[in-house]
Amino acid sequence: VAPPSLAAGIDVGGTKCLGVVITPDGTVVREEKWPTPRGGDAIIEVLAELADALRPWDTLGAGVAGLVSRDGVLRAAPNLPGVRELAVRERLSAKLGAPVWVDNDASCAAVAEWRFGVAQGAHEVVLVTLGTGIGGGHVVEGRPARGANGFAGEPGHMVVDPNGPPCVCGGRGCWERYASGAGLIRFAREAAEGGRLDRAVDLAGGEVEAVRGEHLRAAALEGDHDARVVFDLFAWWVALGLVNLTNLLDPELLVIGGGLAEAADLYLDGVRRHVGELLYAPSHRPHPRIEVAHLGERAGAVGAALLANFPDG
Amino acid sequence: VAPPSLAAGIDVGGTKCLGVVITPDGTVVREEKWPTPRGGDAIIEVLAELADALRPWDTLGAGVAGLVSRDGVLRAAPNLPGVRELAVRERLSAKLGAPVWVDNDASCAAVAEWRFGVAQGAHEVVLVTLGTGIGGGHVVEGRPARGANGFAGEPGHMVVDPNGPPCVCGGRGCWERYASGAGLIRFAREAAEGGRLDRAVDLAGGEVEAVRGEHLRAAALEGDHDARVVFDLFAWWVALGLVNLTNLLDPELLVIGGGLAEAADLYLDGVRRHVGELLYAPSHRPHPRIEVAHLGERAGAVGAALLANFPDG
Repeated sequence: VAPPSLAAGIDVGGTKCLGVVITPDGTVVREEKWPTPRGGDAIIEVLAELADALRPWDTLGAGVAGLVSRDGVLRAAPNLPGVRELAVRERLSAKLGAPVWVDNDASCAAVAEWRFGVAQGAHEVVLVTLGTGIGGGHVVEGRPARGANGFAGEPGHMVVDPNGPPCVCGGRGCWERYASGAGLIRFAREAAEGGRLDRAVDLAGGEVEAVRGEHLRAAALEGDHDARVVFDLFAWWVALGLVNLTNLLDPELLVIGGGLAEAADLYLDGVRRHVGELLYAPSHRPHPRIEVAHLGERAGAVGAALLANFPDG
Repeated sequence: VAPPSLAAGIDVGGTKCLGVVITPDGTVVREEKWPTPRGGDAIIEVLAELADALRPWDTLGAGVAGLVSRDGVLRAAPNLPGVRELAVRERLSAKLGAPVWVDNDASCAAVAEWRFGVAQGAHEVVLVTLGTGIGGGHVVEGRPARGANGFAGEPGHMVVDPNGPPCVCGGRGCWERYASGAGLIRFAREAAEGGRLDRAVDLAGGEVEAVRGEHLRAAALEGDHDARVVFDLFAWWVALGLVNLTNLLDPELLVIGGGLAEAADLYLDGVRRHVGELLYAPSHRPHPRIEVAHLGERAGAVGAALLANFPDG
């Protein structure tokens, strides 16, 4: 049997569905970006139409943020309001008359970075997507490590301070309250309220509540000290979580992906420095390399296209 | 080639070295317990003598608390003062004229529980040893998951509160400051200082500073409310770390080993209840089973004896 020549992958995000078709060397030959509809039934419908729009393809995979079981059921999806227990694999497969592979979007991104991106050749890699929340993927010797049920890789809800701010998950002090876009904005507003972020507040039109990532980033790029202090605090929290992951998993490579990867020039050095300070027994071990993802917003879709290579999960 | 019929394993602890010889079905046919000497050279010497005392055997493995690299170098060992960068595998192998396998003691215990203990048949199991500190082992489909360098499985130094008490590792708020024997005693003394642990203080001769685990346990077994509250606080912290591990690794089984496993009847139900409360998306996933290790203090030595089954690390 000849290997599949065209692999389709769809990344189902909170606002958009990004579909790609790739050749075996990772070249993207088609791409479609559609809005994500509301509700499970509508999502299945749109995925089927998008899959048809991407034809021809030989295999199809989908990556979705949330808890995806090994049999392709989206059990819970924080970014897709009201969607739970959605049998994506079974329903989409029935509509298309073809097998479909489904996994967590960050696991897909990790596979994609391992195959075509910054993690090529790495024996053990952990990818974290820093965006509104935090996702995670873990690839060992080229295979996604999924855990017993497929739910491995939710570092965003690792508790790093039980007295910390409440999380959407119902817990307190989850890592994604600090090392995400939401965390960065909270640090910025706390600094602004304390009168320690004047330039970014100026850029936001003088309103503390209006400070967004773009203002903070612009101020930092101008060299504003206060904005850089906020990014360093952010970097410290990113590092804290990466150190926890390293103490548990000992990856050779940590990859930072997600929307905040674009601003990594403002915090990556800080993350590396703080990881070196926080790591257990730092002088008696190689430190993990820490790099920024290469595949950008396509990582999830490209990785979804690769899922058919892991047919037995 | 016939499989080895007698496998020797030595668990190198802070105070004693426990050596066993097992048959393929796990029966312990010989056992030796010797004091652990001070210093790396003395440890190699004693291990060689102990290995000779255990003869005949066909293979030999050793488990040591600390960071053990994939090539069998003990890089750092918190329980063995002054010992670091000790080439256990190479030096012991040269002395004995036989290959030796070396790994972290908690990884050994996890392998042993998977092969002969409570975790038989589990596809993915995480074992934590709760004692003076916390160790960890992770077995996937019967093989230890060691990470890129062999240093995976140090959950004790996962930071769960950056403002928490200082840790021996130089950090703050590591999980082993809470969910270990040291943590339990700290909770007890804090309660006692607040006048909320009278019975255990009585049992300790009326001195708050004299309260040890045995007094706390005796009071709890009598049904003392205050002592049970301390165990429930301990259970909450054990659960917090186990939830972090589950959000990352999604094991089907979590095993509690180490010295504190003996007192599990006083906190295991609490751990299970708190894990159910703290887990991410608890109503949309199977919860991991949580069980107490079966092999007791021999687990590390039995697992060390099994290391020869994983020759390529």
